[in-house]
Amino acid sequence: MPPFRPLIALTQGDPAGIGPEVLLRALNDDAVRQAARCVIIGNLAVLRRVARKHRIPMPLLAPMTLTSALESAPGPFLAEAAPCPASLALAGKPSAESGLAAAAAVKKAVEMALAGTVQAVVTTPLSKEALHRAGVPYPGHTEMIAAQCKASRPVMMMVGGGLRVALVTTHAPMAALPQRVTRRAVYETILVTHNDLRIRFGVRRPRIAVCGLNPHAGEAGLFGKEEGAAIAPAVRAAYDRGLCCQGPFPADTLFIPQRRAQFDAIVAMYHDQGTIPVKMLAFESGVNATLGLPIIRTSPDHGTAYDIVRKGVAHPGSMIAAVLLAAEMAARA
Amino acid sequence: MPPFRPLIALTQGDPAGIGPEVLLRALNDDAVRQAARCVIIGNLAVLRRVARKHRIPMPLLAPMTLTSALESAPGPFLAEAAPCPASLALAGKPSAESGLAAAAAVKKAVEMALAGTVQAVVTTPLSKEALHRAGVPYPGHTEMIAAQCKASRPVMMMVGGGLRVALVTTHAPMAALPQRVTRRAVYETILVTHNDLRIRFGVRRPRIAVCGLNPHAGEAGLFGKEEGAAIAPAVRAAYDRGLCCQGPFPADTLFIPQRRAQFDAIVAMYHDQGTIPVKMLAFESGVNATLGLPIIRTSPDHGTAYDIVRKGVAHPGSMIAAVLLAAEMAARA
Repeated sequence: MPPFRPLIALTQGDPAGIGPEVLLRALNDDAVRQAARCVIIGNLAVLRRVARKHRIPMPLLAPMTLTSALESAPGPFLAEAAPCPASLALAGKPSAESGLAAAAAVKKAVEMALAGTVQAVVTTPLSKEALHRAGVPYPGHTEMIAAQCKASRPVMMMVGGGLRVALVTTHAPMAALPQRVTRRAVYETILVTHNDLRIRFGVRRPRIAVCGLNPHAGEAGLFGKEEGAAIAPAVRAAYDRGLCCQGPFPADTLFIPQRRAQFDAIVAMYHDQGTIPVKMLAFESGVNATLGLPIIRTSPDHGTAYDIVRKGVAHPGSMIAAVLLAAEMAARA
Repeated sequence: MPPFRPLIALTQGDPAGIGPEVLLRALNDDAVRQAARCVIIGNLAVLRRVARKHRIPMPLLAPMTLTSALESAPGPFLAEAAPCPASLALAGKPSAESGLAAAAAVKKAVEMALAGTVQAVVTTPLSKEALHRAGVPYPGHTEMIAAQCKASRPVMMMVGGGLRVALVTTHAPMAALPQRVTRRAVYETILVTHNDLRIRFGVRRPRIAVCGLNPHAGEAGLFGKEEGAAIAPAVRAAYDRGLCCQGPFPADTLFIPQRRAQFDAIVAMYHDQGTIPVKMLAFESGVNATLGLPIIRTSPDHGTAYDIVRKGVAHPGSMIAAVLLAAEMAARA
């Protein structure tokens, strides 16, 4: 029997960004082909234009039909979510049109995952500004997908370089952290992380470390109150529920090699606290996974990179890693 | 002619912490002996007790005299700042007595450096709580030393693993950052970093990168205002003054290997933004240097570690690195 290859939807992302390029490069990657059957949610004309410009071999894309999922055809398949002119490709700037096209692809991919047609979704970067211009009422992928899935606590986890870091807050200004790092937010993030480590990552008894917010984790209240007021009570509540969960620890010593090896995941309080270590260890292979959803969703950890769209130098490492992680998670489902 | 070996004052630190232990281990280190003539500011009885307990060879300590500095005697020398009972050694807990002893040693070491008797000061850890109990009106080393030196903008720089990171704020709660990350604080930190890179580190034309405060360096105001209101204007002012200074950059991509190699120092906005990367790269060899002082001052990047005081397992790597860096800086003066 051939190895199980899950069917995974890959969105094209913002057609004017590097999404189509990294997607095409990933489709040509041997590891990706062996791990998954890919369904591109995008536009043939856009992909062709990018492939031609950057001299990337254009894969033969079979149209996705209702029965594709059931067949043993290897793919890759193509499904169009909305029409999109080829002229948007390589544009290197956000527009209402590119935002609409990107949002339509995400919506369709999530629909397919919720219906069970695909086993996972990998999204390539879209532009927050393009979404805004298109009148899409969500600031980014995660919020859009969580709303469509009716998930109340989506958790962004970064995976790379042997680290798994879940974030309590994501794109919050630092000034808003004292309001957003609540006992409830920390507790729910720990719970979602624990559950998804079991279900999606196959960790039987997840060991979770929780960072403090302030320097030295607040040094007993001397450098901040949030540890005592919100984080420690959340950790205790999770622990009392039977979870293997410790903290809050000073973040700066938690990410050193000897310490991080003791845990299956680290819960960080804010964006840079988690992204600094993961990007240091895995710059071109870091993956974002959204936990707390009824579906599997991963993405590369970079943006649309408009400035390099016409250069043909976009590195597909993170995109490839995102597909491979999604395939691993799907194989466990 | 024998190589230049600067005379460096090493404070004993809190006698009840691991200061005396790492100090003794460093004195037995070949690289330290070759790089510097050390003057221990501490107490013979304390050091003897720690050496006996942990079976560390006790170096012969010649009493420091007014003429020691002028002689070619190799040292190490000993100078007592204040009497201190041997019973405080290995106590593993803060007390008013240990705070007083630690503060007296720092004061004497700085006096000697200001007078030119020694060329640099290396402080071993003291306890903020012990200082507080002793009624010393400073929360830590840096504030105490800056006051004694009449320095208005002491800047903490962490050095290790090929990185040099200067901090705009140090032990500030996260909630206070929006108030403390001012245009003036950022500007002065850049200036001090630039000057000390030239004078102390021998970098002719320092290239300095400045981190943002918020995720994605604020993403053009979307995730925070401090970049536009304080950091960017400070960087511009420094640049206009002729400094090679860029930013604000998103912190998470600034610390990846390819990027950090492009700069001689990175200015970070808060504690963990700088300590996470330095500790990841140099956990047992990271050094803190205080810039912006009329004297050279370094220290290991760990604390009193009361919990391991009686175990004899304190790692001297960071202390050794602190002495070597101080010696290097002194050789340049």
